[in-house]
Amino acid sequence: MIPSALLQQAVDRALGEDLHAGDVTSEALLGEDVQCVARALAKQPLVACGSEVFARVFYTVDPTLRVEEFVADGQQVPPGTALYCVEGSARSVLAGERTALNFVQRLAGIATLTRRFVERLPAETKARIVDTRKTTPGLRAFERYAVRSGGARNHRDSLGAGVLIKDNHIAAVGGLTAAIQRARGVAPHSHRIEVEVESLAAVDEALAAGADIIMLDNFEPAELGLAIEKISGRALVEVSGGVTLDRVESLARAGVDVISVGALTHSAAAADISLDLELLGS
Amino acid sequence: MIPSALLQQAVDRALGEDLHAGDVTSEALLGEDVQCVARALAKQPLVACGSEVFARVFYTVDPTLRVEEFVADGQQVPPGTALYCVEGSARSVLAGERTALNFVQRLAGIATLTRRFVERLPAETKARIVDTRKTTPGLRAFERYAVRSGGARNHRDSLGAGVLIKDNHIAAVGGLTAAIQRARGVAPHSHRIEVEVESLAAVDEALAAGADIIMLDNFEPAELGLAIEKISGRALVEVSGGVTLDRVESLARAGVDVISVGALTHSAAAADISLDLELLGS
Amino acid sequence: MIPSALLQQAVDRALGEDLHAGDVTSEALLGEDVQCVARALAKQPLVACGSEVFARVFYTVDPTLRVEEFVADGQQVPPGTALYCVEGSARSVLAGERTALNFVQRLAGIATLTRRFVERLPAETKARIVDTRKTTPGLRAFERYAVRSGGARNHRDSLGAGVLIKDNHIAAVGGLTAAIQRARGVAPHSHRIEVEVESLAAVDEALAAGADIIMLDNFEPAELGLAIEKISGRALVEVSGGVTLDRVESLARAGVDVISVGALTHSAAAADISLDLELLGS
Amino acid sequence: MIPSALLQQAVDRALGEDLHAGDVTSEALLGEDVQCVARALAKQPLVACGSEVFARVFYTVDPTLRVEEFVADGQQVPPGTALYCVEGSARSVLAGERTALNFVQRLAGIATLTRRFVERLPAETKARIVDTRKTTPGLRAFERYAVRSGGARNHRDSLGAGVLIKDNHIAAVGGLTAAIQRARGVAPHSHRIEVEVESLAAVDEALAAGADIIMLDNFEPAELGLAIEKISGRALVEVSGGVTLDRVESLARAGVDVISVGALTHSAAAADISLDLELLGS
Amino acid sequence: MIPSALLQQAVDRALGEDLHAGDVTSEALLGEDVQCVARALAKQPLVACGSEVFARVFYTVDPTLRVEEFVADGQQVPPGTALYCVEGSARSVLAGERTALNFVQRLAGIATLTRRFVERLPAETKARIVDTRKTTPGLRAFERYAVRSGGARNHRDSLGAGVLIKDNHIAAVGGLTAAIQRARGVAPHSHRIEVEVESLAAVDEALAAGADIIMLDNFEPAELGLAIEKISGRALVEVSGGVTLDRVESLARAGVDVISVGALTHSAAAADISLDLELLGS
Amino acid sequence: MIPSALLQQAVDRALGEDLHAGDVTSEALLGEDVQCVARALAKQPLVACGSEVFARVFYTVDPTLRVEEFVADGQQVPPGTALYCVEGSARSVLAGERTALNFVQRLAGIATLTRRFVERLPAETKARIVDTRKTTPGLRAFERYAVRSGGARNHRDSLGAGVLIKDNHIAAVGGLTAAIQRARGVAPHSHRIEVEVESLAAVDEALAAGADIIMLDNFEPAELGLAIEKISGRALVEVSGGVTLDRVESLARAGVDVISVGALTHSAAAADISLDLELLGS
Repeated sequence: MIPSALLQQAVDRALGEDLHAGDVTSEALLGEDVQCVARALAKQPLVACGSEVFARVFYTVDPTLRVEEFVADGQQVPPGTALYCVEGSARSVLAGERTALNFVQRLAGIATLTRRFVERLPAETKARIVDTRKTTPGLRAFERYAVRSGGARNHRDSLGAGVLIKDNHIAAVGGLTAAIQRARGVAPHSHRIEVEVESLAAVDEALAAGADIIMLDNFEPAELGLAIEKISGRALVEVSGGVTLDRVESLARAGVDVISVGALTHSAAAADISLDLELLGS
Repeated sequence: MIPSALLQQAVDRALGEDLHAGDVTSEALLGEDVQCVARALAKQPLVACGSEVFARVFYTVDPTLRVEEFVADGQQVPPGTALYCVEGSARSVLAGERTALNFVQRLAGIATLTRRFVERLPAETKARIVDTRKTTPGLRAFERYAVRSGGARNHRDSLGAGVLIKDNHIAAVGGLTAAIQRARGVAPHSHRIEVEVESLAAVDEALAAGADIIMLDNFEPAELGLAIEKISGRALVEVSGGVTLDRVESLARAGVDVISVGALTHSAAAADISLDLELLGS
Repeated sequence: MIPSALLQQAVDRALGEDLHAGDVTSEALLGEDVQCVARALAKQPLVACGSEVFARVFYTVDPTLRVEEFVADGQQVPPGTALYCVEGSARSVLAGERTALNFVQRLAGIATLTRRFVERLPAETKARIVDTRKTTPGLRAFERYAVRSGGARNHRDSLGAGVLIKDNHIAAVGGLTAAIQRARGVAPHSHRIEVEVESLAAVDEALAAGADIIMLDNFEPAELGLAIEKISGRALVEVSGGVTLDRVESLARAGVDVISVGALTHSAAAADISLDLELLGS
Repeated sequence: MIPSALLQQAVDRALGEDLHAGDVTSEALLGEDVQCVARALAKQPLVACGSEVFARVFYTVDPTLRVEEFVADGQQVPPGTALYCVEGSARSVLAGERTALNFVQRLAGIATLTRRFVERLPAETKARIVDTRKTTPGLRAFERYAVRSGGARNHRDSLGAGVLIKDNHIAAVGGLTAAIQRARGVAPHSHRIEVEVESLAAVDEALAAGADIIMLDNFEPAELGLAIEKISGRALVEVSGGVTLDRVESLARAGVDVISVGALTHSAAAADISLDLELLGS
Repeated sequence: MIPSALLQQAVDRALGEDLHAGDVTSEALLGEDVQCVARALAKQPLVACGSEVFARVFYTVDPTLRVEEFVADGQQVPPGTALYCVEGSARSVLAGERTALNFVQRLAGIATLTRRFVERLPAETKARIVDTRKTTPGLRAFERYAVRSGGARNHRDSLGAGVLIKDNHIAAVGGLTAAIQRARGVAPHSHRIEVEVESLAAVDEALAAGADIIMLDNFEPAELGLAIEKISGRALVEVSGGVTLDRVESLARAGVDVISVGALTHSAAAADISLDLELLGS
Repeated sequence: MIPSALLQQAVDRALGEDLHAGDVTSEALLGEDVQCVARALAKQPLVACGSEVFARVFYTVDPTLRVEEFVADGQQVPPGTALYCVEGSARSVLAGERTALNFVQRLAGIATLTRRFVERLPAETKARIVDTRKTTPGLRAFERYAVRSGGARNHRDSLGAGVLIKDNHIAAVGGLTAAIQRARGVAPHSHRIEVEVESLAAVDEALAAGADIIMLDNFEPAELGLAIEKISGRALVEVSGGVTLDRVESLARAGVDVISVGALTHSAAAADISLDLELLGS
């Protein structure tokens, strides 16, 4: 899923935040040899995500811990389900507890919200849900993975991984057609050329200029229908901005190809997951 | 606010995620000398937060940009308010746009949610709202700052910055009194000793053992009242776990000192802020 | 060009290699106040590249140095041309000399070799030269920039920034059509789907399955012509592998769209650039 | 060979360049359980170098991969030789393929070019080939190792690891003798004092002042002979700058001790090595 | 003890300082297969500290080395005691020797000096020795651990982990009472409020304002007694600044709770420990 | 002095240790606009060292601070001397105070101790004092600089920057002569070959084999004299291990060239320096 070094760096950074001065309480109260088993439990219905980072947190704290995954990423589970288990030194488990949960609660939160969007897509439409670059600074690779675990797809990864021509680019170049042509002349040939338009006239111009993807910005439903009819498969149609759960179905039925939803990553609440710890004695 | 090196590292990391392969579109379409002015606008009522990181993102992308702050961190503003302004090379502004917004939308989101909790505290009570360690991995210092901007206070920063004795610690030591004594004998003298209790009997024992802070876990309202009466100022009273906006007032009126709310950081939705960019020509 | 933090990290790393123990000779022999002016001179015909990193090296060693660019990146110059100039403390200039040259010699070397390939493209063809992922570990962003400075274009930046289906992928999925369909169902919609084929039959299948780009692997000239005729604009045609200067013209005339050349980055010799230093006294 | 942390950092950095957004193609098309065996094959005669970094790349991508070395660093092999082998998850092998090859192609390229220079040294002379500080930014330790694998020796590692007095130093101090004396009075006693001279008179002065190494800069062959005769063992003689393969033998026969060659690291073409992958099924 | 990532980073950094250019001598003179066993010996009476970092250094150099701990951290041993043992490749052991010793000599030096202070505390007093923030830049977590190994306790970890009000703070706020109140209104409730005072009058004011800890700055012995009498358990009493071994007993007997000693970390001499290496042949 | 990136990284790391959670006290009690001037005062006779790092700490905390150096590195001053001055926001000055002092107290401590050793060298001898690799992990470049500020010289910087043949190397190779020859055949020609010997016979062998530096290990005074007589200038003579202030003069008079002293860096007590802060109002 996530490149190993990225994973390790994020885990090191997060553990550093919580443990730079050790764990005063556990070091005072728990003998080094006290053992435990701890289970991460879903406290709400959720889509699991993050088993790899959960394990990495604990292995980083203490390589002698043993972590087990019960629920694979992307699986929907009811409340009460045991997701993962970690066993070994109680001191070590408590040292990693908060950090591990902070990761998986966030990732499962994103996967769970994503799944709710995906489930609104009527089966007979071709529409797909995609994320945006509105991710948490420092966690983009993790959050994009959570979106995939939720069943949606990713948009471009970064400003260098796709061409998206907006109004200011068009204004600077002096016209939509010129912008598309110039971008095609410079961008990697593996990138499609996407252009954001605000009117039906612009849709016509984008099609004529050979845009690969047309993003319809703030189109009224009626106008949206007309735009999609004009395009009729000659370009992919993307709709973005303020997409709520309630609008998904009608957008999909209108023939939109791609529905991008910033909220998947910028506004998902953490999933409720707790770590249930049982001491085993020394 | 946030130590300069931490700030820079987080900004570098986030810009790296978005710009490691440059900005294909703007490099293709905007001449190097096209200038612009861009304003960050609140699109909803919000508590501003993050002006320093907003500026740092743009200064890192291009030291010749000029950033201005119109609204100080912690100030509540209506929709439509211009929060910050950045002026200079349009390429540079577009290169930093998403990263800067990802930071301030998250921080303002936290500050705004925090303010809503704080506003529920009746003026005549002594209760305060505090955050928890349930922060986004890698952004703890930022999120704690946002909580303060929202008007609440911080809990301990890390496992090393405070003693919090929980059931497993007590079980391992063999009793609440022993746990408090042992912790006091080891922890820095600048730390208060906090203990989590689940019964009135445990409140008595904690008081007798000299706990500085007693965290009441899952007490029914009636029992909560009895516990606070027993304690009557001999220790600080903290309530944690599942605190919703609706419960704040009654908890405060019951005499609780500290109400800790994980949702401030783990479940705040991003505040809606956009960057309005106007080209100035070259 | 290159994100500021990437630039700084590469410069810090390179200076660390050369200066971790200071500069024994200059610290022994040059007073702190000895001033100099030094010019970077092309000792061969070359395409300049790297003025920004040249400056950053010296500014990092000593922020009081003054650097001037005489020749913009991408410009072709004859031997003897002064490219850049740095002025200030002689100790500081000598401390940065080797590191600055190591960067610009490599980048100008790549830009110069790239230009030679680009110049072989007949004006009346649509073919373009592109680079590959065969870059120096740790310097990919720099080398892709040098390729652009040389007048060519970039291929995908990383394994996540484009889909390229090869024989093993096809074998694993059980067929070229299935592979294209499955990739389209998963990859970001901003990516084109590219497939590598080894026979005319595979070209047919790729076209039928809707491949966006077809990479022709080891096709004989005659076969290549047939393949391009079959494709006739329905997909982009890429040729890769062992492309020498001599083959560029015929490939372009055959109607190839994209000619990718690993040698641009993995085998360019350093351009000969030296730093001519003149002491100014204290 | 190379300190473990340096090795890991370079590998992490390189993998980050290629994998920060995952491998879209393989994740789409290869099941997690598809296994493979892949052999790194020499496609030209070469001196192998880099088995340790080859293995580290794959172990970093996926610790369950198994890597085997067939050819030790420094060994000369004919085309077609299998150098290394990696076995395990096909996804993981493809994720690391390009990065691993980018390292070993560069290192083998340097070792191979170095060997060609070394082979030109007549057996009966004492001359040795050494590298310079003209290395790729960020890869100095790797490239110095490749030079040793090729059979040559290293020059000083950094500006702090040796004294080399050049014309500007001499000008600043006011004379060659003064420069040597002052350097000797400051530098670590474990360093030899080397001085670059441009005339026979300067050779005399350097000898009189007790230089340990004399670098002859741009001496005509006749003059070179006279200089070496003057020196006759009282100092080591180094020749640097523009040394081509053709000049090695005559320099060695003239009695030069050290021939330093920047091209070893700044202009070696990558050795042609490819990874031959065979799927094993799941 | 010390978070794993912090430990690894410090070890990587230190090894980088010593090994960035390899170990010229051992690579020249020791075959790769020469084995050895080496024992770390105490050459003076000391309190051992640092077995974990000792092991980590060698495992980082070469994961095939085997390290054994004979003496646990915090144990007092006579000269001649074997503390640790490392066995395996002689090249690897020599590569890590100096770095490993640099760590444990420093840590044992701090633990040993700390123990001397702790032993001066009369058993029947409640006084404890604590450290300060006067630690070596970059090694705070290590040095705090060494202090605990020596038998003393830690003061606050950082400026964010405790409130300590000094004269300038009081002056800025306009009075000691106001300062304490304001600090209490802002600081995390888990922190005690400490105030530094310089007169008996200030002691009175601090007590009245509810200070949790009172630091007596430069009190004469007689005055100190009066101050402690006034306080009589209503706040903790700390004495800091220029505390020598000779003063410990009288301070403890005077009823001081906390004696903080900067010298523990800023002026401990390294403990004398050497590595005794025995070659085993190949 | 110290490469800029190394300096910045060490400062960032140290500030991170002290400020990761901000400065609770000053943020609570000092308005953002309170200004101050603060002077770093020598509280003992000392050799100043570290003005650059002192400034960098404060500039990193807050680029608007103004720092002035009154006493250059390497200058000896009496108690009471103002060394440096920093002016600006009181919050910022207090935030950097401890970190800045931790650096300069350590560096001045080393420079001061070094000066004491250097002053013991009789003027008419050629002996010099040098440091060792027994430095604080992570601060080697700083401490070597402090040693130079104190008037001594540096030994080799790392295991790669010099050849030092010890008993184990000799044993592994099978003899001192063979060891010297083999080392000379592999090491960079800019390195001198140093060998540690334990007997007069070994001195003879070392001389015959052409050792450049002979380190006399544990020679009795009489034997030492004999050894130096034998060597009589054909190699440099180094003495190392347990050199106290009292032994310096006799070693120098005996004719030793180099006296290396580990205590300079591993056991120097911090110099007593405090920051005297005066509030200026807002």
